[in-house]
Amino acid sequence: SVATLPPPLPENLLFRQLFDYQSYTYTYLLADQNTKDAILIDPVLELVNRDVHLIEDHGLTLKYAVNTHCHADHITGTGELKKRLPSCKSVISGSSGAQADVFIKEGDYIHFGNLSLEVAATPGHTNGCVTYVMHHNGRPVIAFTGDALLIRGCGRTDFQEGDPETLYRSVYDKIFSLPDDTLLYPAHDYTGQTVTSVAEEKKFNPRLTKPINEFVEIMKGLNLPYPKAIDKALPANLVCGIVEMPKAKKT
Amino acid sequence: SVATLPPPLPENLLFRQLFDYQSYTYTYLLADQNTKDAILIDPVLELVNRDVHLIEDHGLTLKYAVNTHCHADHITGTGELKKRLPSCKSVISGSSGAQADVFIKEGDYIHFGNLSLEVAATPGHTNGCVTYVMHHNGRPVIAFTGDALLIRGCGRTDFQEGDPETLYRSVYDKIFSLPDDTLLYPAHDYTGQTVTSVAEEKKFNPRLTKPINEFVEIMKGLNLPYPKAIDKALPANLVCGIVEMPKAKKT
Ligand SMILES: [Fe+2]
Ligand SMILES: [Fe+2]
Repeated sequence: SVATLPPPLPENLLFRQLFDYQSYTYTYLLADQNTKDAILIDPVLELVNRDVHLIEDHGLTLKYAVNTHCHADHITGTGELKKRLPSCKSVISGSSGAQADVFIKEGDYIHFGNLSLEVAATPGHTNGCVTYVMHHNGRPVIAFTGDALLIRGCGRTDFQEGDPETLYRSVYDKIFSLPDDTLLYPAHDYTGQTVTSVAEEKKFNPRLTKPINEFVEIMKGLNLPYPKAIDKALPANLVCGIVEMPKAKKT
Repeated sequence: SVATLPPPLPENLLFRQLFDYQSYTYTYLLADQNTKDAILIDPVLELVNRDVHLIEDHGLTLKYAVNTHCHADHITGTGELKKRLPSCKSVISGSSGAQADVFIKEGDYIHFGNLSLEVAATPGHTNGCVTYVMHHNGRPVIAFTGDALLIRGCGRTDFQEGDPETLYRSVYDKIFSLPDDTLLYPAHDYTGQTVTSVAEEKKFNPRLTKPINEFVEIMKGLNLPYPKAIDKALPANLVCGIVEMPKAKKT
């Protein structure tokens, strides 16, 4: 069994985990309660209204709407958030191939108030997948892993630029190398769980505790159904979730 | 807007929020990481397997499976948990009318390791509804409000022993009287939110910020559909979720 407690978090951190019942996506609101600067990670288009209300109730200024990667299962709320909250800029990794106001890469920081997230490139589910890591007291305390690592699972590797070997190395090099008690918040969960830790996944992840060759075999043998939202979500997410409707022809 | 940060929590507290996508129920795992003694609040029958795995992964001993009230929307996991984990005793308020190993009332404490929850009677949704309050540094820090108070909402008052005036007084006397930054974890959410605070609900709860007479009118005018699981869930929950199947007659 594992025996880890959560590390102390920054005293000025406001943190809210939010969920989309349709695509099983977690959205995260983080803010510096002193300066009121906020960011949203992986917002969902249909839930922008909920998220804007929460931001307003707390008197926050949304600086960035950040994606962990170009999603295939829901349309990002970043474009709509920019319309509703003009302070907001969209952020995604340059290697995602998607449009955004700010492109980030390995080693960059996203600052909001006196808090920040460091970018770790964790490709394998897609080429542009990143993990956002918050530090406190000189050490990592929380990581937002996107679809690279899920609770007792991981993102699929059979579409977009999916590659199981790359994913395995990303998880080992950038996530399992964090301190054991680092809290891990994924982009999805399908079992009703909300959070895990490095120690837990290193010990109990049914796929990633296997040697790399077995992991690759597992991932190649999943035979998952074609993702039902991908044909709608991918084109929209490549342009920040803002899809221009084709203009009706004059007849 | 509100400006509260979460209060410091006990250093030895392991805390996991869990969700049931069918009934929108939150289950909470709390444990003293030093002694490994754990409790579950509002476990769901169909998810006992998930919860047992989590308990085993963390090397915990489940002392109590605790309900905030006799639920009408899902069958409690307490009976099944007792079968799977013999260390576990079921707990519910005496005024719920349901069976259990331990009956609690206003002012009682539920101890697990060096942590405990204080019982506050918060009737109104049902007669037996209680809120479980955790203290730290001599003050309340977290409250599990069951259906008395939901995030920007509250439990319905049109079945079981529902009474809107009683619910309103329970919330004001026992929940809104807690420190502003006390974290509130409800038994349900239907909007994808996971947590709120006393300050937030005192300011933004659309029903409970109203004067009592308006609140009563709102609750009486909701015209909610008959709860779809009530005829199955209530009889089962009155006997701890263990329904004896009628024995097949010998023919
Ligand atoms: Fe994805
Ligand atoms: Fe209820």
